[in-house]
Amino acid sequence: MKVNGVHYRSIWPDGDDETVSIIDQTKLPHRFEIARLETLDDAARAIETMQVRGAPLIGATAAYGICLALGEDASDDALEAAAERLRATRPTAINLNWAIDEMLAAVRNRPRGERLQAARVRAHEICDEDVETNRRIGEHGLTLIRDAAAAKPGETVNILTHCNAGWIATVDWGTALAPIYMAHDAGLPVHVWVDETRPRNQGAALTAWELGGHGVPHTIVADNAGGHLMQHGLVDLCITGTDRTTAAGDVANKIGTYLKALAAKDNGVPFHVALPSSTIDWTIEDGVAGIPIEEREAREVTHVQGLGPDGEIVSVEIAAPGSPAANYAFDVTPARLVTGLITERGLCPASGEGLRALFPEKG
Amino acid sequence: MKVNGVHYRSIWPDGDDETVSIIDQTKLPHRFEIARLETLDDAARAIETMQVRGAPLIGATAAYGICLALGEDASDDALEAAAERLRATRPTAINLNWAIDEMLAAVRNRPRGERLQAARVRAHEICDEDVETNRRIGEHGLTLIRDAAAAKPGETVNILTHCNAGWIATVDWGTALAPIYMAHDAGLPVHVWVDETRPRNQGAALTAWELGGHGVPHTIVADNAGGHLMQHGLVDLCITGTDRTTAAGDVANKIGTYLKALAAKDNGVPFHVALPSSTIDWTIEDGVAGIPIEEREAREVTHVQGLGPDGEIVSVEIAAPGSPAANYAFDVTPARLVTGLITERGLCPASGEGLRALFPEKG
Repeated sequence: MKVNGVHYRSIWPDGDDETVSIIDQTKLPHRFEIARLETLDDAARAIETMQVRGAPLIGATAAYGICLALGEDASDDALEAAAERLRATRPTAINLNWAIDEMLAAVRNRPRGERLQAARVRAHEICDEDVETNRRIGEHGLTLIRDAAAAKPGETVNILTHCNAGWIATVDWGTALAPIYMAHDAGLPVHVWVDETRPRNQGAALTAWELGGHGVPHTIVADNAGGHLMQHGLVDLCITGTDRTTAAGDVANKIGTYLKALAAKDNGVPFHVALPSSTIDWTIEDGVAGIPIEEREAREVTHVQGLGPDGEIVSVEIAAPGSPAANYAFDVTPARLVTGLITERGLCPASGEGLRALFPEKG
Repeated sequence: MKVNGVHYRSIWPDGDDETVSIIDQTKLPHRFEIARLETLDDAARAIETMQVRGAPLIGATAAYGICLALGEDASDDALEAAAERLRATRPTAINLNWAIDEMLAAVRNRPRGERLQAARVRAHEICDEDVETNRRIGEHGLTLIRDAAAAKPGETVNILTHCNAGWIATVDWGTALAPIYMAHDAGLPVHVWVDETRPRNQGAALTAWELGGHGVPHTIVADNAGGHLMQHGLVDLCITGTDRTTAAGDVANKIGTYLKALAAKDNGVPFHVALPSSTIDWTIEDGVAGIPIEEREAREVTHVQGLGPDGEIVSVEIAAPGSPAANYAFDVTPARLVTGLITERGLCPASGEGLRALFPEKG
C-alpha cells in the first residue's frame, strides 16, 4: 500500500536481485527507514529483532534468507544450515517453517549452479501468492463494507480493528485491513477506530501509521474504549485478524480481541475475522481449551517505548517499582461471538460447517 | 493504609494545625513525596494539578483549603472568594462542591474570631466521616471475599480491579480496595489482578503502588487481559469503584469497566461495585442514555508518562505522528451486568429496588 503517495510492499528484492529490502518496523511509527538484507544473517536477525513481524512477512523474509544463503554458498550443508538458522529465529511461527520447507523443496534436487535462480523464483512466488491471498480476502470483505455503506447512504462507515493485521504484517494488503483499503480506494466513506493494543501498541504505532500513510481516516482509542463506542452506535462493524483459527471457528488473536467481541455481541455489532486459510488449525475444535497462549516478558507491560522529548526512541517505566506483571499475548474468541470469517475463498459462518463448506477437501 | 510499614492517610493536618500535608500523587509511583499546603492557593493548585485526585480526597483538600484561607483572612469576602477559587479547580467534581458547602455552613454564621477553629473541626470531621464510610464499605465487602475464600479452602482468592478506587483516592481505606485491605489484614489469602487502566495508567501506577506498599500480593495486567483470565478460571470476583451510580443501579466508572463486566457475565464471575452513597444520582435511571461522558485531551492517549532511563519523569509519544486520538474517560456498565453494590449501609442488588431497600428515605 502507499506511504506518503508511493506504493510499497513490506519486502522486495533490490534491482540486482542480490539483496533484499525491508521496512525496519522497529523504527515505526517514528521513522520510516528501509533496511537492506545482504546475508543470511541479516535476514535471520531481521526476524529475531522484529524488524519484520507478522506471520506472512516472516515467512517471506525467511524465503529470501535462503536466497541470500545460496548466494554465499550453494552446497547441501550450507542450505541445511541456513534452514536451521532461520527456523530458530521465531520458534512458534507456523508460516516460517512452511516457507522454509517450500524453499528446500524448490532447490534441494537441483544442481548447485541452478539453485540460486530457482530459489529466487520461488521466493518471489511466495510473496506474490501472499499478496494474491490477501487481495482475495480484501475483495470478499469489501462486500461487507459495501453492505454497511448501503445501509446508511451518505454516512461514514465506522469500523473497529484491534492490533495490526495490515499490509506491513504481510507482503501487501494485509488481512483485516485489506477490505478497508479496498473500500477507501473505491471511494466508500470509511473511518477506522484503531485500538491502541497494549502492551506492544501495534494499533497506535503500526495500524495508525499504515492507515495514515494510505490516507484512510482513522482515530486511535485506548483498548478500554471499544465498549463505550459500540454502546453509543459509533461502530458499524468490527474486523480483526487471527493468529490461529480452530476447525470449529474459534479464533486466537491478540489479547483483548475477546473483550471487543463480547461488546459487539452485547450491542448487535457484526464482528468479522479475516484470515488466510493457512492459519486454520484443522486439528483443534475448542480454542479456549486447546490453543496454548504465549506468555511474554513482564517488561512489555511495565515499560513503554516511545519517542522521547529529545527525539530519541526510549523506554519509560510506567508501573509501580517492584510490582509484578503478567503478559498474556493472545486470547481466544469463541465462534459463538464471531459473526463471520473472511477467507481467500469467500465468507463463511464461524463454525465447523461453515468452514468445511468453503474447504470441502478438509472435511 | 501502610507505605513501607508506616500508616498514612492521604491528607493530614500538621502538628501545629496551621498547615496540611498531602502525598504528591503526580510523583507516584516513582517517588513518594510529601507536599505541604500552607495557603489557599497551595490547596487549589494541588487539586488543579492532580497532586490530589479522587472525589473524596478532592473534597477533603477543599475543606482544608477553606481553613488555610481563614488563617489568612477570616472576613466574609475572603471566605466567599476562597469558596469560588476552590469550586473552579475541578468543575465536575460533585464532592468538591459538597465539601465547600459543608465548610461554609460550619463557619458563616460565626464571629470571625471563631471561624478558623470551627473550620478546622469540620474539616477534620469530613475526613473522619470519609474514613468511616469507607471502613463500613470494607466490612460489608469483606463478607464477599470471606465467602469466596470459604468456597476454595486453602487456595488464593483472585480479585480483579480496574483503575484506582483505593485509599489514595479517598482519605483512607478506599472504596473498591477497602474490602481487599481488610481481607489481607485478616489473613485471608488474596491476590489482586490490577488492570493497567489506560490511558492514565492509574492501575499500574497507583493501585499497584498502594497494594505493594501495604504488602497485598498483586499482578499488573494490560487492560486487554481480563477476559482471558476469566476464561481460564483465574478470577474469583471483580470489585471496582464508580464515579456515579444511577437510581436503577447502572454505574459510570473508568473507561473499560463495561468490558470487564461483560467478560465477568460471560464466565459466571461475580462483578461487584463499591460506592459511598454520596455518588448515587437519584435523578437518573438509564446510565447509558443519561450520564454525560467526559472527553479528555488526545495527548493522554498518544503520549505516555513514565520514568526515563536517566531517572527523570518524561513523556514519550507512542502513536503514529499526526494520527488523531479520542479519549473517553468513563463508560457505563448497565445494572444487568453488576452482581451487586457494596455501600456503607450494606450490600444490595444493582437495581432500583435494591437501592431503595437500603436507602428508604430516597424512595
